Amino acid sequence: MPTFKLTLAYDGTNYVGWQRQAAGTSIQGLIEDALRELDGRDVMVNGAGRTDAGVHALGQVASCTLERTLEAPVLVRALNARLPPDVRALSAELAAAGFHARFAATAKTYRYRFFDAPVISPFERLYAWHVAGGLDVEAMNDAARTLEGRHDFAAFASAGGVTKTTERRVMSATVARDPQGFVVLEITGNGFLRHMVRAIAGTLVEIGRGRQPRETVPDVLASRDRSRAGPTAPARGLFLVAVEYADL
Amino acid sequence: MPTFKLTLAYDGTNYVGWQRQAAGTSIQGLIEDALRELDGRDVMVNGAGRTDAGVHALGQVASCTLERTLEAPVLVRALNARLPPDVRALSAELAAAGFHARFAATAKTYRYRFFDAPVISPFERLYAWHVAGGLDVEAMNDAARTLEGRHDFAAFASAGGVTKTTERRVMSATVARDPQGFVVLEITGNGFLRHMVRAIAGTLVEIGRGRQPRETVPDVLASRDRSRAGPTAPARGLFLVAVEYADL
Repeated sequence: MPTFKLTLAYDGTNYVGWQRQAAGTSIQGLIEDALRELDGRDVMVNGAGRTDAGVHALGQVASCTLERTLEAPVLVRALNARLPPDVRALSAELAAAGFHARFAATAKTYRYRFFDAPVISPFERLYAWHVAGGLDVEAMNDAARTLEGRHDFAAFASAGGVTKTTERRVMSATVARDPQGFVVLEITGNGFLRHMVRAIAGTLVEIGRGRQPRETVPDVLASRDRSRAGPTAPARGLFLVAVEYADL
Repeated sequence: MPTFKLTLAYDGTNYVGWQRQAAGTSIQGLIEDALRELDGRDVMVNGAGRTDAGVHALGQVASCTLERTLEAPVLVRALNARLPPDVRALSAELAAAGFHARFAATAKTYRYRFFDAPVISPFERLYAWHVAGGLDVEAMNDAARTLEGRHDFAAFASAGGVTKTTERRVMSATVARDPQGFVVLEITGNGFLRHMVRAIAGTLVEIGRGRQPRETVPDVLASRDRSRAGPTAPARGLFLVAVEYADL
């Protein structure tokens, strides 16, 4: 009964998100269906991040336990032969029995991409938030840095989350302009509340446009009031980049 | 009656190609529909390259003559407000009366992207040809270079083209691996026959896989026989990159 750690990339545009839903196609459902075919029985797959509908992944991690003994490269090829081209298994490795991709994760990194020039490339339309007017990247970065540390992030969480506490630790949060002109938020934390990165992205855009001062974040955090933060940024700009583990 | 030179980018995935067809949505049709709305009358738009269904453009050029006097930046904004997000006007400039984007073009540059590692990113699935097995880039480049010069390209043309002669001049044809691992053909010529770049791409893949010697191109050209060249490569790997003009 080998347990595997799978690393996955997907274009979330056409899916209801990671998690199986009553209606619509989920990434979890696609992986579980492919593994059922491979293993000849129902297989449960746990993902490190429950990405929402339309959110993308460059390095989602999922765990599963199979009955069949398969070499990791064979598993990758067999999965990709059964998955649609917008969902790919990048790698598989054997993990300790009981390894759970979500519970064992020590940190996750998300990226949010903004574009602020007048015309966005047609090839980027599904992978960034196109905002009107130029963004003050330095102000956004200053504000992002004040998210670092252990805080109660209730002001940046949507209702409907399932966690007991709204306290999380952000190890790093930075905003910079990349060589292609995209403004990129990169945030690493030990966990994220529902819609937390998108609420942060929406708040940073308000700051980047000068509608909120860059010093606003500590007050918003202290308020624990969702209405004090900015709007929830669109899903299409968000990528789950990587998940870290202490060891396997 | 100002005449404009429009520069356009589009993701060709969802379209029947540049040219208006009896059925399906064409890029030309979208631009003409948008301009009709702007100009209050039927507007004819001529594109420099008649890209096929599924072929993309980073710098297609089109010409049109309007009755309304519009500033170029206003025209760009008005077009983009009326076009779907996978088709964008990048710029507009005034051109001499009678300017015709196809007849006046002195050179066009196309790019074809191949990917030869086992797993292609889900974000690249619609923008490259994923080929099995590693490609010998040096052999492909050597073969591409033998396309340069004035030749009869009948062996690389599909039936159904509308030109009188199959002679064309290729100013430059190179193949190189880019930093992301894609193998990229970049070809500039004074004109291209129907499916010519895709037939060249298909031939270069045969050479890159060692199924044809790198010295084969002169013999294929001399044969004028389409069956001597490789298969027509898929549309999704092809991009019209730029169109050159002597002057406006």
